[in-house]
Amino acid sequence: MSEQEYSIKEAMIYTQRLAQMSKALWKAVEKDWQQWIKPYDLNINEHHILWIAYHLQGATISDIAKFGVMHVSTAFNFSKKLEQRGYLKFFKKDDDRRNTYVLVTDEGEELLKEMTENYFVSHHTILDGSLPIKNIYGKFPEFLEVMSVIRNVYGEDFMEIFERGFDSLGETFNESDGRITTTPPELKLASGEDK
Amino acid sequence: MSEQEYSIKEAMIYTQRLAQMSKALWKAVEKDWQQWIKPYDLNINEHHILWIAYHLQGATISDIAKFGVMHVSTAFNFSKKLEQRGYLKFFKKDDDRRNTYVLVTDEGEELLKEMTENYFVSHHTILDGSLPIKNIYGKFPEFLEVMSVIRNVYGEDFMEIFERGFDSLGETFNESDGRITTTPPELKLASGEDK
Repeated sequence: MSEQEYSIKEAMIYTQRLAQMSKALWKAVEKDWQQWIKPYDLNINEHHILWIAYHLQGATISDIAKFGVMHVSTAFNFSKKLEQRGYLKFFKKDDDRRNTYVLVTDEGEELLKEMTENYFVSHHTILDGSLPIKNIYGKFPEFLEVMSVIRNVYGEDFMEIFERGFDSLGETFNESDGRITTTPPELKLASGEDK
Repeated sequence: MSEQEYSIKEAMIYTQRLAQMSKALWKAVEKDWQQWIKPYDLNINEHHILWIAYHLQGATISDIAKFGVMHVSTAFNFSKKLEQRGYLKFFKKDDDRRNTYVLVTDEGEELLKEMTENYFVSHHTILDGSLPIKNIYGKFPEFLEVMSVIRNVYGEDFMEIFERGFDSLGETFNESDGRITTTPPELKLASGEDK
């Protein structure tokens, strides 16, 4: 990363282009995401925390902050709110008293199940916007360039957690005759948690 | 877009993946962007408005809202603030009394010039994160898949304005011996503006 093999001009145009592109993409994503979760009285960070806690099964607050790309204090405060609403529980492990772990409660699981089953009740503009590529290439785009930039910015463990979350989503999600059902992910926690 | 040639399961995993990827990318972009503009006491929307007004030379408030992916009221309120700080002026055209146009003032131009010249004073993590691709392929990534999704979501005129802005950035931006200088874009306004 030391050899500068680009001009200042191209680097500036490239980064500003990426910035504005990313803003446009995120604003579309944000709108879809908000419309989906609106009936459940959650904001995006709260939903993201539940999602991570559910799919990682025994994440720490700092795992959540890292993977959810939010400040540790944000992750903690919203997790507290979710705990107060009965969707999340905090616990410590006997062999690791320093970290605070979170786990989705039965009630939280019920909520996520319902949200998954109603996923297509709201409109997903980014899905519509991706269908022309799907129709041409036979599969949804993989955004390998974006993923590469994210890997370089956030590091390998971010990607590992990212993939683990989506593996779990795939495993918990069932579809039969166009209806969605979910089965909870296996509890992968080491023993010792204070349930 | 009518034929449903995908399963609900893959559509759900795809869209949630895109959502979380987009959040991670945007958070990295946002941080870089904020660090760059911080010394100038601007927020991202304010800077984006100045950028659009400067490079489109005679944009309406609704052009700014559309291209800046913000609410019309947000575009208007922040433009008002920029006007109060002397960076932007509002005007009407004789042949179009309905729309409000904005133009960057000399002071605003001076600000943008300074910001461009100091662009690399702050750190751009997304630039570092893109260099491995640049080193392998010999050019920065083009994110064609993302651009295609954005084109489908926001429409052809969004893309046209997007490209026009970056064409202008390229034209106004000069580099000699690693130093950046800028020359203002040509005024493309039709006659009749109230300067």
